[in-house]
Amino acid sequence: MGDTACMGKRLSLTAYREGILRRDRVVLARALTLVESRLPADQELAQQLLDHLLPHTGRAVRIGITGVPGVGKSSFIEAFGTYLTGQGKPVAVLAVDPSSVRSRGSILGDKTRMENLARNPLAYIRPTPAGQYAGGVASYTRESLLLCEAAGFEVILVETVGVGQAETQVQGMVDFFMLLLLAGAGDELQGLKRGIMEMADMLVITKADAASQTAVQAAQTAYQNALYLFPPAASGWLPPVLTASAHERTGLEEIWQKVGEFLEKTRESGYFEQHRQQQRADWLLACLRQELESRIFAGQPAWLDALVGQVSSGQTPPRLAARQWADRLLPHS
Amino acid sequence: MGDTACMGKRLSLTAYREGILRRDRVVLARALTLVESRLPADQELAQQLLDHLLPHTGRAVRIGITGVPGVGKSSFIEAFGTYLTGQGKPVAVLAVDPSSVRSRGSILGDKTRMENLARNPLAYIRPTPAGQYAGGVASYTRESLLLCEAAGFEVILVETVGVGQAETQVQGMVDFFMLLLLAGAGDELQGLKRGIMEMADMLVITKADAASQTAVQAAQTAYQNALYLFPPAASGWLPPVLTASAHERTGLEEIWQKVGEFLEKTRESGYFEQHRQQQRADWLLACLRQELESRIFAGQPAWLDALVGQVSSGQTPPRLAARQWADRLLPHS
Repeated sequence: MGDTACMGKRLSLTAYREGILRRDRVVLARALTLVESRLPADQELAQQLLDHLLPHTGRAVRIGITGVPGVGKSSFIEAFGTYLTGQGKPVAVLAVDPSSVRSRGSILGDKTRMENLARNPLAYIRPTPAGQYAGGVASYTRESLLLCEAAGFEVILVETVGVGQAETQVQGMVDFFMLLLLAGAGDELQGLKRGIMEMADMLVITKADAASQTAVQAAQTAYQNALYLFPPAASGWLPPVLTASAHERTGLEEIWQKVGEFLEKTRESGYFEQHRQQQRADWLLACLRQELESRIFAGQPAWLDALVGQVSSGQTPPRLAARQWADRLLPHS
Repeated sequence: MGDTACMGKRLSLTAYREGILRRDRVVLARALTLVESRLPADQELAQQLLDHLLPHTGRAVRIGITGVPGVGKSSFIEAFGTYLTGQGKPVAVLAVDPSSVRSRGSILGDKTRMENLARNPLAYIRPTPAGQYAGGVASYTRESLLLCEAAGFEVILVETVGVGQAETQVQGMVDFFMLLLLAGAGDELQGLKRGIMEMADMLVITKADAASQTAVQAAQTAYQNALYLFPPAASGWLPPVLTASAHERTGLEEIWQKVGEFLEKTRESGYFEQHRQQQRADWLLACLRQELESRIFAGQPAWLDALVGQVSSGQTPPRLAARQWADRLLPHS
């Protein structure tokens, strides 16, 4: 397609590229919209743009932040983001929301959740895109993250919105994964949260001002003991349990210091770069799967209707039908 | 392949087919192992067997049973299964365990969890297969279910083992979905469990003997009120909240009556058959995806290694690489 002139709402490749590199927020916002678009022409242009910007990416610290609803994620991100901008670091906030297909809501919406940070000139908050996405919002968030890096953001906070699979998706795109917890929630250690805890590089007990110091310390000890039970992580890092109060702005410096320690150690050991390489490889496989599906199932082809009819009426077992169809399309090599 | 002679541990198609139709447990067990096998020849034979047996399937009542660890799932299934066999109904128990890839454990294992039911001549408990499966254990469980139906089981209880996505997979293969709960667990209504509650056709408060009658009634009312908040289900059925004690063997008859009521109503309305048709269509799509993937990514092809190398080193954006590759393999039509 090459450099297209500005058609409608779309800019030219050069305009996007140069706008982002000179850190123009308006151009960045339009490029993020381009990345999120489902129009084939937009997608084509977005991929060209990413290809051009790739050498300018990879320099930010990518931090994933998760926690159950009610843990105070927005307040923590606002406080932590404000602390970082206070250190002169430009911060971008993105969200992964696998549930948005269902709620169709723009959860970060009008940014009212993080009012102060949204007004901060060193910060950029991207609302969750509304609407349906083929591969889930996660795949777009990965690409948005690259655009934000090219636009000079030094810390990218990727927030999970919703519960369940979001955490795995976020872990697949960040260098450091933070789990926010509340003091005094005894069964946090159970079930699903155990799996999430295994992914975390740091546990942060939020709202430390709202509980007694004894309760906070007890929770800290309990979580630290729980973490000792897990097999050592591939990074060789033992996740610390810290405390923070967004309200009183405490604990933020220590958190950032620990993140720095993690980065130093893993860069030295080579884990940091290995991990990013693995993430790119995993992302490629996810994209390959998406491409295949979209090409094969797109537009509700007639053969698929026929096959579905045959199977749903109970004439042919589903897997047999799938094999016969695949034999025609992609014979075994 | 046709009818093969008995080679090694594999029987001939006819031997499997006839053994299952005459309700031979030993042959059923071997056929279930065949369905779970990853060997291409086994898979081929398994599909032929399913194709032959399809006319003999579909007559059982398929019931999914889920609940968090600690809710007393095994004891409930043992008590409920024993009640059903007492009514003269042959019962098979299968398990969906999406986490088995990780734990590699055979969770139902040596059947010690349901000792009495395992010794019952009208019951059959299939241990969860150990080892890794391409499409998750769920896809094999669907096929195991068909084999059990052909072998004359009238009720199939499909248990979820593990948490999270298992429920969706079980819901995709059963007619009736039961959620087990404990009295006095206040935050059951939150988070993920809310999603599971929306799928349920019945809530059962287990261990009713272990809590006070007041607590059980309070929980029953609270859950029933929570259910009223959900939009009406496609089945037109309002899920009841019942209570049971596996220990005292109470509540089981009422549960079975309610299941019967559900079946009667949905068969009359046509929902029952529509639902099964939809499940077959969904299963077909899942099989198509699996087939595609296994044919394209099988055997770690050289082109994939090259592509992964290019992407993981950061030379090409993953999605662009995926598109270029897909353009060669499956040009846009």
